Amino acid sequence: MLEKMFNPDSVAVIGASRTEGKVGRAVLENLMQNSELTIIPINPNVDEILGLPCYHNILEVPPETKVDLAIIVVPAKFVPGSIDECGRAGVGNVIVISAGFKEAGIEGARLERECIALCEKYGIKLIGPNCLGIIDTASGLNASFAANMAYEGNIAMMSQSGAICTVTLDWAERIGVGFSKFISLGNKAVLAENDFLQLFEQDPSTAVIAAYLEGVKDGPEFIKIAERVSRSKPVVIVKSGRTSVGSKAVSSHTGTLAGSDAAYNAAFKQGGVLRADSLEEMLDYSRAFSVCPLPEGRNIAIITNAGGLGILTADACYNSGLSIASFEEKTVERLREKLPPAANFYDPVDVLGDAGADLYEHALDVVLDDINVNGIIVLVSPQSMTDVPGIAEKVAAKIKDSKKPILCNFAGGSRIAAGEEILNKYGIPNYSSSERAVASMNALCNYYTIRNHKRGAPAEIKADKEYAQSFIDSASKNKRRMHGLESMDILKAYDIPVVDARIAKNLPDAVKAAEDMGYPIVMKILSPDISHKSDVGGIRLNLKHADDVERAYNSMMSDVRHYMPDAAITGVQLQKMISGGKEVIIGMDRDPQFGPLLMFGLGGTYVEFLKDVSFAVAPIAEAEAKHMVSSIKTYPLIAGVRGEAASDIDSIVRTLLKVSQLVTDFPEILEFEINPLMVMPEGQGCVAMDIRFTLNLNE
Amino acid sequence: MLEKMFNPDSVAVIGASRTEGKVGRAVLENLMQNSELTIIPINPNVDEILGLPCYHNILEVPPETKVDLAIIVVPAKFVPGSIDECGRAGVGNVIVISAGFKEAGIEGARLERECIALCEKYGIKLIGPNCLGIIDTASGLNASFAANMAYEGNIAMMSQSGAICTVTLDWAERIGVGFSKFISLGNKAVLAENDFLQLFEQDPSTAVIAAYLEGVKDGPEFIKIAERVSRSKPVVIVKSGRTSVGSKAVSSHTGTLAGSDAAYNAAFKQGGVLRADSLEEMLDYSRAFSVCPLPEGRNIAIITNAGGLGILTADACYNSGLSIASFEEKTVERLREKLPPAANFYDPVDVLGDAGADLYEHALDVVLDDINVNGIIVLVSPQSMTDVPGIAEKVAAKIKDSKKPILCNFAGGSRIAAGEEILNKYGIPNYSSSERAVASMNALCNYYTIRNHKRGAPAEIKADKEYAQSFIDSASKNKRRMHGLESMDILKAYDIPVVDARIAKNLPDAVKAAEDMGYPIVMKILSPDISHKSDVGGIRLNLKHADDVERAYNSMMSDVRHYMPDAAITGVQLQKMISGGKEVIIGMDRDPQFGPLLMFGLGGTYVEFLKDVSFAVAPIAEAEAKHMVSSIKTYPLIAGVRGEAASDIDSIVRTLLKVSQLVTDFPEILEFEINPLMVMPEGQGCVAMDIRFTLNLNE
Repeated sequence: MLEKMFNPDSVAVIGASRTEGKVGRAVLENLMQNSELTIIPINPNVDEILGLPCYHNILEVPPETKVDLAIIVVPAKFVPGSIDECGRAGVGNVIVISAGFKEAGIEGARLERECIALCEKYGIKLIGPNCLGIIDTASGLNASFAANMAYEGNIAMMSQSGAICTVTLDWAERIGVGFSKFISLGNKAVLAENDFLQLFEQDPSTAVIAAYLEGVKDGPEFIKIAERVSRSKPVVIVKSGRTSVGSKAVSSHTGTLAGSDAAYNAAFKQGGVLRADSLEEMLDYSRAFSVCPLPEGRNIAIITNAGGLGILTADACYNSGLSIASFEEKTVERLREKLPPAANFYDPVDVLGDAGADLYEHALDVVLDDINVNGIIVLVSPQSMTDVPGIAEKVAAKIKDSKKPILCNFAGGSRIAAGEEILNKYGIPNYSSSERAVASMNALCNYYTIRNHKRGAPAEIKADKEYAQSFIDSASKNKRRMHGLESMDILKAYDIPVVDARIAKNLPDAVKAAEDMGYPIVMKILSPDISHKSDVGGIRLNLKHADDVERAYNSMMSDVRHYMPDAAITGVQLQKMISGGKEVIIGMDRDPQFGPLLMFGLGGTYVEFLKDVSFAVAPIAEAEAKHMVSSIKTYPLIAGVRGEAASDIDSIVRTLLKVSQLVTDFPEILEFEINPLMVMPEGQGCVAMDIRFTLNLNE
Repeated sequence: MLEKMFNPDSVAVIGASRTEGKVGRAVLENLMQNSELTIIPINPNVDEILGLPCYHNILEVPPETKVDLAIIVVPAKFVPGSIDECGRAGVGNVIVISAGFKEAGIEGARLERECIALCEKYGIKLIGPNCLGIIDTASGLNASFAANMAYEGNIAMMSQSGAICTVTLDWAERIGVGFSKFISLGNKAVLAENDFLQLFEQDPSTAVIAAYLEGVKDGPEFIKIAERVSRSKPVVIVKSGRTSVGSKAVSSHTGTLAGSDAAYNAAFKQGGVLRADSLEEMLDYSRAFSVCPLPEGRNIAIITNAGGLGILTADACYNSGLSIASFEEKTVERLREKLPPAANFYDPVDVLGDAGADLYEHALDVVLDDINVNGIIVLVSPQSMTDVPGIAEKVAAKIKDSKKPILCNFAGGSRIAAGEEILNKYGIPNYSSSERAVASMNALCNYYTIRNHKRGAPAEIKADKEYAQSFIDSASKNKRRMHGLESMDILKAYDIPVVDARIAKNLPDAVKAAEDMGYPIVMKILSPDISHKSDVGGIRLNLKHADDVERAYNSMMSDVRHYMPDAAITGVQLQKMISGGKEVIIGMDRDPQFGPLLMFGLGGTYVEFLKDVSFAVAPIAEAEAKHMVSSIKTYPLIAGVRGEAASDIDSIVRTLLKVSQLVTDFPEILEFEINPLMVMPEGQGCVAMDIRFTLNLNE
């Protein structure tokens, strides 16, 4: 797949130029770095460029010169024509560097659609438009106008921003980071992140996948592919745009609480993606993955020649959720054998300021042997006696052969430069601060967990889908938004327990319904004009006899008429009063990128201002449903705290799975919320007390 | 103060050495960087070192050579003798570089105490022992064995770790950061952070104060001094040891929730100290303060030639609580005038990839003029057309004259190096990532708030201190820990409302008490053997008549005897049942460094696992008490949410101030907790329902 895109024998440059400073020349020069490549400049006005014979049109290239890849740099309006010619000339791979498409407005968007149609017609694989090009260090291809060529390495990088490609390449060059493939995604008209994730998965020269993304093209596919790819290779993504609040009007709790970024967080989590918060983090993590074995636990040993740095690093470990290792007894003994008496033999190991390379080596040897140690951070400060290069050599040799990850922070400036150089030479990352080393160690630990996490298939839920369908059909004929008793039937279709409730149009009906249902009951006003029932006296709790019902009915009518004299009142709703349970919320908001975004949280006022909720993209497997429940901070409140009885968490999990199935089955449900779902003590189930949902009437 | 320590005319080095690699030689060489200094080596075995006449003992130095400062580098056991000689020779300032004191064990600690006594005897100001020395770039003094001399600058730095001095100096040299004074604190036997805070406050060459601390010597003084100093100069401190859980047994909520670090966070906040989480942050913030005016608000403009970087930077602003500025209309118009049509004229301003220095200059000019902009972050990525040095020159010139802070992130590697160099030349920090620039901008904004925050004096509370004293005296005669009704009197002495409660030894007394108090009431078992009353049926709620009291009394006695047949029962406690209020907790735990650490949080189970509590070191002013209440996440629950009535927050604030006064007046109170304090709706006050406290019997 895409073999000839990244390892072509011959490449045409449509819009090649002689003029210095022009993209059409920069691309040509970059391609010429590889002397084995057949390079074919295309320019209607010239016969030769930089010593290469130039054709006026790609159709003129002799058929025996099979063009594997065409790079287009002509102005946007000529690009569709060039693609058409590529198609007719049988060129299967095209990179469009030219800008002026979707990003530039309506006319550009039209041009881009034209290009897409042509690619479909001819089966052309296209990268771009509006991109920097691609680099493949394994094949020696630099099909870009980037000023830097990448070093060889095992990190594959893709970026939705060309400028960020430039920054990353320049930065990587300074700190000695290499790449296997480097792809500027541009507008992702045809090929996008999902295609390249799969390419990187198969690519033998790629061990780590890094990306800068501003969005994903196909969210549900992305989760599936990332989930698979991340089982074999770590996927580190920095996704920008956390802040841009979508313009979509939100009317549910789920929508309000989700913000624009919750879906990405959920999807990345489900896809096993490590989300980096900055380019720096992305590079830091990728460097660690590129050289380190994975730690089999979160117990970290620190070796330092400066006590203060050791403490700061331990602090950083603690903040990241890493543990400071408890050494085996023999480790402490062996450290004591060679380290001076004033040294610290426990984690963080302080070899003291005058320690030479041999002491570092000894400490590393001993600590590596300790079964309680999963990873090591080596700190070196340039004190007056410190043999920085000597220590670097010893440490680098250990890291090369280690089965446990070892990360370094040689801390300082010019006096540690020689050490950094040696580490660089061995391809070992040196982090400029111990906090960055710790963050990267944490990423290694997190990926170990991701890789060993069993997700399982989405649960199969038995449901009366036809009944639900007929209900939705009739509902959408009438109105868009539904809530309350009238829409409870859709829950029944998915076997979600709902509270016993009746509608009564007058007092005698209300009394009769109450007598049928049994006491105690709750009475609520029914009116299309009243949304906050309690504000107008429209709720009465704990009615215990027919008398109570009568008194409540009469006073409620009087109250409601007082507060809202013009409200149309259609009757009252009676429902069984349920006590002894805890209120939770299960919601769903349809995300434009990923589809059904499920939400779970505690009910009541807490959910709103603590924002203590969890998210996942449906459909979810049982493990995810469990995680949704257990990952909220207030989980102890339902798991049972201070001797209180545990709530029936299994029933929440089952309900989450049923809702997941429901909203997956019916894409026309835009918003959905069970609020509250009353959860009874363990073994006693749960019951939906109220529901609201919004249908998309266009579907 | 300390004038001759940092700007001496003559310096003696006790333990001066000819031997290369020895500290006694390194110090001498460093001092000799200043040719105007009179340097006097002291060594009993030598007559001349490095061309300087050497005395065998400081007492031999002729009296006309007034020695302003002596630096001692002899082995620890000889140090007291040397100090004694300094004292006799009339030397007022001493730096002890030698190690082997408190940090080395019992004998070292004894030696250190001896040194302290001698300093007291002679009135000697001493830095160290176990330190690297000091540097003063204004006077040209390098009285240390550091390998790097600091650049001149306006940042004063002190560090409790010599190794961290070394790292910081080396690092600062690489990135061109300068210092006014640089102090290695060592063991802080005599002079400590509080002394130097005051020195830096007065020092005309210091504009920014930075520190690495592992602890403070006098916590309450530290808060007072820092509070004053931070009004004129920013104080940035990285404090290590967040993780080290104190060995002190904790029995109160306050202690459990505080951990080891809450007191530092509270004290730093009260002292106006900006806490940095790493050395990198400390240097980053200090650099920003060293050159930037303060922003008068949190609205930040971003100027970039790379859209993606702009979005990432906006994300970072959002995460830090900074806002993206809303430009005035005329700003957008003026940007439109010169920027190309595809540019972005709103924040973040995208001048596009091919922008030259003139466009950057124009954008900066225009955005600086906007009254809605408080600070600016300039991003430069090295794209193919980017004139990095040209942009750096224009930007640097603007920054020099700007009344608003401007921070830069020239992003990349070798291709932005020329720009970095120019910025360095102008003394302008370039941050290696936009996230670091944003964090530093946030520090500037936070300091602006700190400097303008009026703290006010601790509130004066009227209290019957004598009554409280007599109560504590009698309590401490009997037992150490007290709770419940028996200790409510201490609250009354400080005018804190307590629940009406009585003790009854038998049923008739109980009925009588209930009739006296009025219904409804709560009955609790009284027994020294029962701590969890509810577990043994020892609590009855909502008793409404004498009948209820009788039934409750009898069934309680029967239940309690059933569960705990051997418990000694002294009677029951009756108290007024209070409903319609919200439970909060006010606690105090005595911190070893800072003294009385107050805690505030909501009552109930939430406080424990949400850890949603606030802290402050007593005595507090009213503003701090208000902040304690409003800064918990669950504040909306008491402030009134969703139409619920607001609680009487004023009464909480008043109670906090009273508790603050109480625990300040009585240092023998080790732990103290009102739990719950029942807060009624606004205007209706609050009432302490239960209290427990622990006295220190040794005082």
